[in-house]
Amino acid sequence: MTEVHTPDWVKHAVFYQIFPDRFAKSAALPKPRNLEAWDAPPTIEGYKGGDLLGVVEHLDHIQDLGVSAIYFTPIFQSASNHRYHTHDYYQVDPLLGGNKAFATLLDECHRRGLKVVLDGVFNHASRGFFQFNDILENGPHSPWIDWFTVEDWPLSPYDGSKPANYLGWVGNRALPKLNTDNPEVREFIMQVAEFWIRQGIDGWRLDVPFEIRTEGFWAEFRQRVKAINPEAYIVGEIWYDSRPWLQGDQFDAVMNYLFTESAMAFAGGPRVLADQVVGRSYHPIPALTGTQYADKIDWLLALYPWEIQLTQLNLLDSHDTARMISIVGGDTASVRLAALLQMTYPGAPSIYYGDEIGLPGTNYDPDTRRGMPWDQPESWDMDLLAYHKQLIAMRNAHPALRTGAYHRLYADDVSYAFARTDEAEALLVAANTGEEAREIIVQTGEHFPEGAELAVLYGTAGAHVEDGKVRITVPARDGVVLHVAL
Amino acid sequence: MTEVHTPDWVKHAVFYQIFPDRFAKSAALPKPRNLEAWDAPPTIEGYKGGDLLGVVEHLDHIQDLGVSAIYFTPIFQSASNHRYHTHDYYQVDPLLGGNKAFATLLDECHRRGLKVVLDGVFNHASRGFFQFNDILENGPHSPWIDWFTVEDWPLSPYDGSKPANYLGWVGNRALPKLNTDNPEVREFIMQVAEFWIRQGIDGWRLDVPFEIRTEGFWAEFRQRVKAINPEAYIVGEIWYDSRPWLQGDQFDAVMNYLFTESAMAFAGGPRVLADQVVGRSYHPIPALTGTQYADKIDWLLALYPWEIQLTQLNLLDSHDTARMISIVGGDTASVRLAALLQMTYPGAPSIYYGDEIGLPGTNYDPDTRRGMPWDQPESWDMDLLAYHKQLIAMRNAHPALRTGAYHRLYADDVSYAFARTDEAEALLVAANTGEEAREIIVQTGEHFPEGAELAVLYGTAGAHVEDGKVRITVPARDGVVLHVAL
Repeated sequence: MTEVHTPDWVKHAVFYQIFPDRFAKSAALPKPRNLEAWDAPPTIEGYKGGDLLGVVEHLDHIQDLGVSAIYFTPIFQSASNHRYHTHDYYQVDPLLGGNKAFATLLDECHRRGLKVVLDGVFNHASRGFFQFNDILENGPHSPWIDWFTVEDWPLSPYDGSKPANYLGWVGNRALPKLNTDNPEVREFIMQVAEFWIRQGIDGWRLDVPFEIRTEGFWAEFRQRVKAINPEAYIVGEIWYDSRPWLQGDQFDAVMNYLFTESAMAFAGGPRVLADQVVGRSYHPIPALTGTQYADKIDWLLALYPWEIQLTQLNLLDSHDTARMISIVGGDTASVRLAALLQMTYPGAPSIYYGDEIGLPGTNYDPDTRRGMPWDQPESWDMDLLAYHKQLIAMRNAHPALRTGAYHRLYADDVSYAFARTDEAEALLVAANTGEEAREIIVQTGEHFPEGAELAVLYGTAGAHVEDGKVRITVPARDGVVLHVAL
Repeated sequence: MTEVHTPDWVKHAVFYQIFPDRFAKSAALPKPRNLEAWDAPPTIEGYKGGDLLGVVEHLDHIQDLGVSAIYFTPIFQSASNHRYHTHDYYQVDPLLGGNKAFATLLDECHRRGLKVVLDGVFNHASRGFFQFNDILENGPHSPWIDWFTVEDWPLSPYDGSKPANYLGWVGNRALPKLNTDNPEVREFIMQVAEFWIRQGIDGWRLDVPFEIRTEGFWAEFRQRVKAINPEAYIVGEIWYDSRPWLQGDQFDAVMNYLFTESAMAFAGGPRVLADQVVGRSYHPIPALTGTQYADKIDWLLALYPWEIQLTQLNLLDSHDTARMISIVGGDTASVRLAALLQMTYPGAPSIYYGDEIGLPGTNYDPDTRRGMPWDQPESWDMDLLAYHKQLIAMRNAHPALRTGAYHRLYADDVSYAFARTDEAEALLVAANTGEEAREIIVQTGEHFPEGAELAVLYGTAGAHVEDGKVRITVPARDGVVLHVAL
């Protein structure tokens, strides 16, 4: 097995995920006429006209949260509001402000110490992508015919009543699959990856990378990206057991939906609405007891090397799911509990824009991609915003929450407790998903010194280590975080 | 009327027109697999893989001809071998070597003193062009809907059995017409024009510019281009009377097909094959007598200001016509005669690649766009090549052939003679399209000094001015050029 190295900065990062069409719109960029109203319910095909200078203008909000990195869903020229239908991998979408606005954004982020990770959609392109369009235009004469997989003629790119006759991602004719077995295509993608790393981005989030089965593809990708920036972050979108990609020779991490589903099933419990999670590749149903959650976490932490665990991208929701607040029917306590588990877990937490203010979003496209309601402060859950700032500040203040060892301490039907420890400090985190306050007695083992006074970082009361255990009262549907310096 | 200024360099230039997919192919650029054999008959949709480094590698050939400027048919990213279906106005086609190869070409041309004019296709784009593709993908939701003219839904871009429901050039659904009445589109095109002028190109040839009827469009285009480079050349593709565009406020010139048709009808006479000129917007049939030709030229020279005449682009054929050698059924003498008229006429002669070696090409796409037979020197008409070099050298050596006044001197059924004069020299050009040598007596008027000995620049014998006239024997189907310094 390859020795595993992952980027140190990710281990200490908190991410903020931005869906660029919906985050913020700058008056500094001219806009075409036919845009949807910012505050209107989003649609599958409509654009609201968010842009990258809009992001620049709201970096204070992001930094005030305590965030240190931004992960953008795709920004390259694309004929779709989510921009997963890439038209040109070298151009930032003109509606976002083009390459010029991106350069401004990248400079300003770096000036503030914020890292920038872009979404790389390399499995498939779009019907307007140059080389595919050439096949549509010239048929068997196209020089680019080997860039995709044509099965028969004629092609039917837009008429769904006829066979497409080319390979598309999950059979979607809008997304012709790039033929990465063609060395020209493979090299094309490698050069795109290198280009943007050279432009200064800090990493790639890879869309559906499991679909690319070309031998050695992702290993080469890693080598070429890391050759330019050894600290670049490579995180794959894989929702399930990702061991084949997390051996140190391919990705640094994946989007940790295995954590998502467990945290949600434990924190949300029976509140998780089936229609809000159906059709997505994760399973926050059935509800998990504390013991079941503890077992899941034990399994998950054993699945990958610790160096990988430290850079996993831990999210509660994303542009690809309903927002958790809507999944649990508006139950803020569930969101708070899940966020507590997320912010105290190894790996980089990622907050989907708007989650910090309780923005709703039902399953999933288009509602989960609403315009960020900058102009409707009355709609913001200010308590939830303060809570996020508090948790992130706590994580940022305590290295053991980021890189400290993880120890399961306690679990029962509704409760779970664990420790995060390094040489300098030990933290005890407990969660109670029950409807009533609960007193638990936690065996602290060797992780906390006998007689130590544990101070409150989050919660209402500290605790005292006596006879190798602490007695804690965890409020109903809430948690505590206690701390002692070593 | 605006005072008319046209670029001085054009008045002294000889152009060479290159169709990039067919001129030359460099081994320095990787190629996709599915290309047509270079020497195989060209097809409507196939690519041969010519590129811009191939041009660089053959600049000696071009310069040896005596040429001083190159006009390229389109080079921007396009899903067609002729590249009139623009996919991206800011990218040179990857098959041509991309923007990098173009920068190399431009540098090398300028180092050699060669000007470079590009083809601007601004009336329409293509089905893969980003903003149009977005309309195909998102329908009425597209922010770019005003960039084109949608007449109804749904659109049918590829299925010809259904109405396209959008405006295309000459009803061609492959070529969606840009809505230049939309200020965003107008500005987009202006910025494209400015961008490439700033990159260093020396002018724009404008494809079907008469189709853009937006008030003030071409006047703004001229102002913005000339603001960056006052010596930039703007030449429109208009085959007919172009007075509306040649008042000094829009184009410097047009592609002078009115000259083409007259020179061909006179030089080729009854040899012009109807099936080789049918369907094109010029009329080299019926044949012209010398007198008729003289009248046509008088009319043509009176049509536009003299400053415009000096920069007209005078061609015998192009990628849009059969080659003259094929139009006249292989009669080289017709080609030679026409070239003599072209090379002694005011305005910049333009040689379509391969014409100088007698490359055939029947009406019109694809055969008129054959691969330049670099590897088949036995197919070259070396006499014709030498003849072109001779005529161009003559034009380059005698300023009066470029900017001197033009005087009709003589015309009869088969012959025509004229003078080109400036303060330093006077030239007499005579052509005989007849099947027998012809002695003509030409009144030289005030244009040649009494008693002057006219030296032979082209032909077999000089002449002596006596009693205000010269007696010249013009060989059958040939011409003479005589000269005297003043």
